[in-house]
Amino acid sequence: MNAHEFRRRGKEMVDYVADYLEGVEGRQVYPDVEPGYLRPLLPTAAPQEPETFEDIIKDVEKIIMPGVTHWHSPYFFAYFPTASSYPAMLADMLCGAIGCIGFSWAASPACTELETVMMDWLGKMLRLPAVFLAGEAGEGGGVIQGSASEATLVALLAARTKVTRCLQAASPGLTQATIMEKLVAYASDQVVATLGTTSCCSFDNLLEVGPICCEEDVWLHVDAAYAGSAFICPEFRHLLNGVEYADSFNFNPHKWLLVNFDCSAMWVKKRTDLTGAFKLDPVYLKHSHQDSGLITDYRHWQLPLGRRFRSLKMWFVFRMYGVKGLQTYIRKHVQLSHEFEALVHQDPRFEVCAEVTLGLVCFRLKGSNKLNEALLERINSAKKIHLVPCHLRDQFVLRFAICSRTVESAHVQLAWEHIRGLATDLLGAQKEE
Amino acid sequence: MNAHEFRRRGKEMVDYVADYLEGVEGRQVYPDVEPGYLRPLLPTAAPQEPETFEDIIKDVEKIIMPGVTHWHSPYFFAYFPTASSYPAMLADMLCGAIGCIGFSWAASPACTELETVMMDWLGKMLRLPAVFLAGEAGEGGGVIQGSASEATLVALLAARTKVTRCLQAASPGLTQATIMEKLVAYASDQVVATLGTTSCCSFDNLLEVGPICCEEDVWLHVDAAYAGSAFICPEFRHLLNGVEYADSFNFNPHKWLLVNFDCSAMWVKKRTDLTGAFKLDPVYLKHSHQDSGLITDYRHWQLPLGRRFRSLKMWFVFRMYGVKGLQTYIRKHVQLSHEFEALVHQDPRFEVCAEVTLGLVCFRLKGSNKLNEALLERINSAKKIHLVPCHLRDQFVLRFAICSRTVESAHVQLAWEHIRGLATDLLGAQKEE
Repeated sequence: MNAHEFRRRGKEMVDYVADYLEGVEGRQVYPDVEPGYLRPLLPTAAPQEPETFEDIIKDVEKIIMPGVTHWHSPYFFAYFPTASSYPAMLADMLCGAIGCIGFSWAASPACTELETVMMDWLGKMLRLPAVFLAGEAGEGGGVIQGSASEATLVALLAARTKVTRCLQAASPGLTQATIMEKLVAYASDQVVATLGTTSCCSFDNLLEVGPICCEEDVWLHVDAAYAGSAFICPEFRHLLNGVEYADSFNFNPHKWLLVNFDCSAMWVKKRTDLTGAFKLDPVYLKHSHQDSGLITDYRHWQLPLGRRFRSLKMWFVFRMYGVKGLQTYIRKHVQLSHEFEALVHQDPRFEVCAEVTLGLVCFRLKGSNKLNEALLERINSAKKIHLVPCHLRDQFVLRFAICSRTVESAHVQLAWEHIRGLATDLLGAQKEE
Repeated sequence: MNAHEFRRRGKEMVDYVADYLEGVEGRQVYPDVEPGYLRPLLPTAAPQEPETFEDIIKDVEKIIMPGVTHWHSPYFFAYFPTASSYPAMLADMLCGAIGCIGFSWAASPACTELETVMMDWLGKMLRLPAVFLAGEAGEGGGVIQGSASEATLVALLAARTKVTRCLQAASPGLTQATIMEKLVAYASDQVVATLGTTSCCSFDNLLEVGPICCEEDVWLHVDAAYAGSAFICPEFRHLLNGVEYADSFNFNPHKWLLVNFDCSAMWVKKRTDLTGAFKLDPVYLKHSHQDSGLITDYRHWQLPLGRRFRSLKMWFVFRMYGVKGLQTYIRKHVQLSHEFEALVHQDPRFEVCAEVTLGLVCFRLKGSNKLNEALLERINSAKKIHLVPCHLRDQFVLRFAICSRTVESAHVQLAWEHIRGLATDLLGAQKEE
């Protein structure tokens, strides 16, 4: 395919994408396929000769779409949101075209420098303490990781390296193995200090945990993967209080801030804690500026060597929405979850199981876990909406997460009517038994 | 931005992308900017109010492009290639629109199943032993990782878990810490068993290493990050001989197989070795099919939880190029590197420093390291082409890697004339001193 054909096919694909997203509400949110559905629909090996774009795009509708769970349907209330916005998609097209691998400053200066500035912009939106920002000469700074898991692992490895060096400096006789044996990582039953857990969006109190970590010289990593986006609204910012005690902080704009996956934002107070742990300097990656102290080589901040130009997505989204637009978006989702919460409260058969702070409502039928498992089974078999459950203490609970960019009050109302109807059927069927 | 505006802006972006790639040859391959160039060109914080797409796209040319190293310029001969093709870009647009997070089969069955089948297609292209393929009921299979580093880490963790369990089964009294202390990972000075090292594209002999690993029950991970793509050509397949001894194998289609970053292909002989090491099963990720043995939940195969629908890129590329098209592409690059090698041989001032097997030529001026450092300095300051160096034994060596999808014989010839001219200047200047 040459540039000429790409101009044509690319525009067709833009229309396909717009059609898909405009029409996603009309598609069944969860697919009908059974495991193994796809293999028999494809040849057993790649074709020897080229096929046409038409062949492939036809197969997208015929083979792929029947097996897609539509995360951007306004009837998708499962897991947590994953971000999707047109500005981010436009930026991703540009990212693919530039196609640079930004492992060092020299590998593409714009890729590195835009990331540093965008992480400062985002940090300021959250009112992160200035010590986390790079600024012109700060010791901290931000980096885009692929996922919160990677950010946690990076923090853990950095903490390990730091404490090992510290102990070895104090007692040069200590071997790494001896130290390793004695290292302890503390975590709650939801892992590391978390703002907005996956199960029920609960919050650790950093103002309690933080001072203890500081006193004991324990690396504090704070994970706000989902909830972090909400901290751009002043009314939710208090949930982040105490972050000043953390060594590293992370949240996922690719969840709730309209920046398509992957974009996990991580800040550290001392960038040398990361670069000290991961520094990798073969001669083919050296460049004339690297020892000047002026530049950032992001390969020292992460596990993989390669990295895409992901900050373009942040830049496009921040500018095309503006901070106010992003705040409006977050507030709308929170308002919709409270709307659903109010509906649950109105029906005495149901109960809300955890405080609703942001965009997640945990609820259940009053009664046994079995009853609630049966209700979820009916909901997900009907495939009009899609939910997933969680366990809170020993209770089986349904999670209703506001996810889609296009979800409106009408969808929430319809979803609730649907759930109520299924509950009525279920309770009726049980009475008959 | 709504769907209507996206249709318009998306098509403009398609043209921008096509213009950029058609015109990239005319842009200076390496930028003129100095560290810190970008920050003063941007506001200190994100705008409160939305800005227009026009504002942003103007800034792309004004602010971003002057700081880009153009990896897809036919005058870019640095590092290794990073893949770029129009079919992959089209697939990425679709991937962004579907925007599913494929951590489990249920999270989007098509995302999981297409990946498994594409990894089988690719494995067959490489004539990997059948034991690495998933097929209908195989014990092995493939997974797309983000990078070769992640694949190596995953292999290492899987190996560690496997040996720990083995030893604990034999001696139940052994603690994990005692075992950990005694574990050894063997690596060469280029890390793990490598087919096509970064410095000079040298090859470990798997037929020597493999049987020893098997005999000693050592996990053998083989990394062919760059070179792996070439194994789709029968004439290069022998370089992969001995892979039958490996437990895991990895290479990066995102380097040399026209599948845009990121797409690192990894296969294992026993998928349970991975899933045993990484299994994560909170209730909100459980689904009704997961214990049926029929399905794959890729979150157990990798470090992060989230994952994009990356197999779409493979599907589009394999079908729109066909195996023959991909082979032609690889062969053209290898032929160009041999053309450059022949040119170097013709000039008695230069020497070729390592066997040219695939698309990389390591060469230098006969003489001191200082002389060659000076030559590289002149080459990269002139910014007509871009190269990076390496050290081979104690020699400072220049790497000439065939990278761009659009590089032709004429570019290689021009690059060589340019290098020769700079060498003549340099040697002349030295004589005068």
